[in-house]
Amino acid sequence: VQAFAEASRAIVGASHVLGAAEDRARYEVDFWRQHGGTAALVLCPGTTAEVAAIVALAAAHGVALVPQAGNTGLVAGGIPDGSGREAILSLRRLDRIRRIDPAGDYLIAEAGCILETVQNAAGEAGRMFPLTLGAEGSCRIGGNVATNAGGNNVLRYGMTRNLVLGLEVVLADGSVLDLLRRLHKDNTGYDLKQLFIGSEGTLGIVTAAVLRLVAMPRERVTFWLAVGSLDDAVHLFAQLRNAFGDLISACELISSPGVELALERLPGLRRPVSEPHPWHLLVEVAWTFDSGLRERVEAELERQFAEGRCLDGAVADNEAQRRMMWRVREGQTEAAMQIGDVVRSDVAVAVGDIPTLVTRVFDRLPTLAPFATLLPFGHVGDGNLHMNFAVPRNTPSEVKLRLLDGLFEEVDRLGGSISAEHGVGRLKRDAIAARKSPAAMTLMHRLKDTLDPAGLLNPGVVLTPRRPFLDPD
Amino acid sequence: VQAFAEASRAIVGASHVLGAAEDRARYEVDFWRQHGGTAALVLCPGTTAEVAAIVALAAAHGVALVPQAGNTGLVAGGIPDGSGREAILSLRRLDRIRRIDPAGDYLIAEAGCILETVQNAAGEAGRMFPLTLGAEGSCRIGGNVATNAGGNNVLRYGMTRNLVLGLEVVLADGSVLDLLRRLHKDNTGYDLKQLFIGSEGTLGIVTAAVLRLVAMPRERVTFWLAVGSLDDAVHLFAQLRNAFGDLISACELISSPGVELALERLPGLRRPVSEPHPWHLLVEVAWTFDSGLRERVEAELERQFAEGRCLDGAVADNEAQRRMMWRVREGQTEAAMQIGDVVRSDVAVAVGDIPTLVTRVFDRLPTLAPFATLLPFGHVGDGNLHMNFAVPRNTPSEVKLRLLDGLFEEVDRLGGSISAEHGVGRLKRDAIAARKSPAAMTLMHRLKDTLDPAGLLNPGVVLTPRRPFLDPD
Repeated sequence: VQAFAEASRAIVGASHVLGAAEDRARYEVDFWRQHGGTAALVLCPGTTAEVAAIVALAAAHGVALVPQAGNTGLVAGGIPDGSGREAILSLRRLDRIRRIDPAGDYLIAEAGCILETVQNAAGEAGRMFPLTLGAEGSCRIGGNVATNAGGNNVLRYGMTRNLVLGLEVVLADGSVLDLLRRLHKDNTGYDLKQLFIGSEGTLGIVTAAVLRLVAMPRERVTFWLAVGSLDDAVHLFAQLRNAFGDLISACELISSPGVELALERLPGLRRPVSEPHPWHLLVEVAWTFDSGLRERVEAELERQFAEGRCLDGAVADNEAQRRMMWRVREGQTEAAMQIGDVVRSDVAVAVGDIPTLVTRVFDRLPTLAPFATLLPFGHVGDGNLHMNFAVPRNTPSEVKLRLLDGLFEEVDRLGGSISAEHGVGRLKRDAIAARKSPAAMTLMHRLKDTLDPAGLLNPGVVLTPRRPFLDPD
Repeated sequence: VQAFAEASRAIVGASHVLGAAEDRARYEVDFWRQHGGTAALVLCPGTTAEVAAIVALAAAHGVALVPQAGNTGLVAGGIPDGSGREAILSLRRLDRIRRIDPAGDYLIAEAGCILETVQNAAGEAGRMFPLTLGAEGSCRIGGNVATNAGGNNVLRYGMTRNLVLGLEVVLADGSVLDLLRRLHKDNTGYDLKQLFIGSEGTLGIVTAAVLRLVAMPRERVTFWLAVGSLDDAVHLFAQLRNAFGDLISACELISSPGVELALERLPGLRRPVSEPHPWHLLVEVAWTFDSGLRERVEAELERQFAEGRCLDGAVADNEAQRRMMWRVREGQTEAAMQIGDVVRSDVAVAVGDIPTLVTRVFDRLPTLAPFATLLPFGHVGDGNLHMNFAVPRNTPSEVKLRLLDGLFEEVDRLGGSISAEHGVGRLKRDAIAARKSPAAMTLMHRLKDTLDPAGLLNPGVVLTPRRPFLDPD
């Protein structure tokens, strides 16, 4: 690796090759401090050309690269393997918005742009970039693309995949694949960019993306509903979907323990409705008109109250109230981490199967881990639920794995996904390999071999390397 | 091929192996009778298992297969090469809707289902399948997926790619890749289905798809606007987009000659506005509420009239008027074909570049082909325009190619696409190869080699075969 480090300095400048342990540290552990691994060094190129040169150099020296953007992932997909022989390739310095064309409904952002920066740039141009998720203040576009990030607005605008018009990718041999098309329609052959979206840096390194913008909504109505059961929550969502169609940008489910925990632990939060209820929906609808939507929401809620399915509700009167509602939703994990550990998950089933999944997992809880509390919440409209477990501090990792295994078994029984949006990383690699068909696994390996024959791009992420590794020089 | 034919009969039954010229004829020429090629035989399997067995058999015998669904393609992507050695694999008999789950927002359709049948099935279940295009009465889902079909509602709902949740694919070796997930979110590894969407049957054969359904709009407002210039048309679209956002499901541009031709030639058509104007927009907005949208449309149109950008307009009062407006839009090509030939195209540029493109091509017309009339129309909101040319009957094909070459040059100058939705097929294969970067072409060939190493799936479509063909036995 010494020769590689030397040559790297000539490419990116000595100050952008971090070798000392204290300089590497923040890149070697993820944002949540849940996963870590030592790297040989951290490289911080500043341009696509520098990324390309580094990748070519790594190929020549047989050094494995771990691409990393915001480092907010939850599945250890941007964390080195701990052998101390990999190099982290940080894309943080590629942080320019190269172009914004509001009339053409697109902008071009480099991989190191923070998501919030992109949202703001779109907003200033009178458009909206609709990807929104908890980590938006620190996650970066390269990671969003590489993991096909989801978030709160998927119901209306789709995953990151649906928001990418074009990509710039550095391939494993160091060549640059320029797919930076700004066209909304282009059927000229295989859509190569699809290969790289969601491939977690294992098939190529995304350096820039053409992102699709949408019309900016002028009126947004955020409301909180309390219901007595999960069946009612799912049914209420179906009714709202019927009434509002794709004006619904978010529909989040929150459990009673999640709400109570957030209210108890986080300062300044107020209960959105007057008393506790078993389940809650946080819903957001929006349109481009100035007014009239709130009246329609209130009329619909009257109907739902009259039918008895909705027990209580509140419509946010202002941005402060809206933020409060979202803070209760977002804050429950943070609150749970104040009193213990949280075993996170990210599963999906058909929307109608959500009550069955939660009931089955809840029923198994006593035998899986008696001290665990189920804190399900998430994007009910997509069938994507974060079935999290609050457990006492220092719960042994066998117990945590047992909880996840039990959950995954129930997800499997319902034909669901054990990773709806977080991705595979290192964490779920084996769990996924055990679930995919041999035909699918074979094809995934063949794609990896085709795009990265030496296996130097994020090895061990998504797929188990099929070849033994040689020591890099 | 004789041994192959023999063995095929054992798989699909003798009556589903068509060897006689008169039986093959309708499969050997496309719907528009523009492209044709002789095949050795036509195979009509009735199940996925039969497709798989046929593909395995073809692999063993070295017989090339041309998959075909509705045969409505415009680029000769489902037509044999004319060597008489290929076999057409028709998917028409795979025409079941396997399942429909309105609450889960999906249905599972086999490749041979006619698009209209799928639309109707969704509608009967109270949902909508939003893909809609001129050929919907005869095109089939397998072809829609294989070509990533676009159509009139792309602005709001995306291309076919955005509407596919899962796929069932027969691979080149005859194995079945079951990716029939009904989940709206699933980030468990490479999204393999993306490979096959838009690959025109060259990487695998789609036998079924899980299709995404959306909420059914209850109020739809269709209106026709007349404007004085293309700049005004593009500007008016931007204003409407601002006002209505993603409630706009279609925004179609139609030229004056296109309107006049349709009115003159097609029986029963009436001019939507009182007098001729240079350019027209046909716009459709829709929402899930029962009423109130028409008033909003009328208020917005008042504003646009007042600003002088919109010269005349009409809102459809009923379904008959709506159909009339669409008939004028759809009928212009049919009308043009009554008096001569039509050179079709399907290009895309950034929306703001549409006026430049049309002006430049119009200016070049006298030198390209003095007797040609430019009939541009299409999906202005996506930047996707069908820049068609009406030419006298029996215009030599050199002249037709010259027109297309001239058009493509202007598209290239603006960084556009020469195939926004129709695909590549055999027709645009060389034109595309000349335009893509070497890196992109290499990667396309490597994907082809990975998925179809013997080159027996639709050879010569999308890509030029890199190996010489051996005679099949």
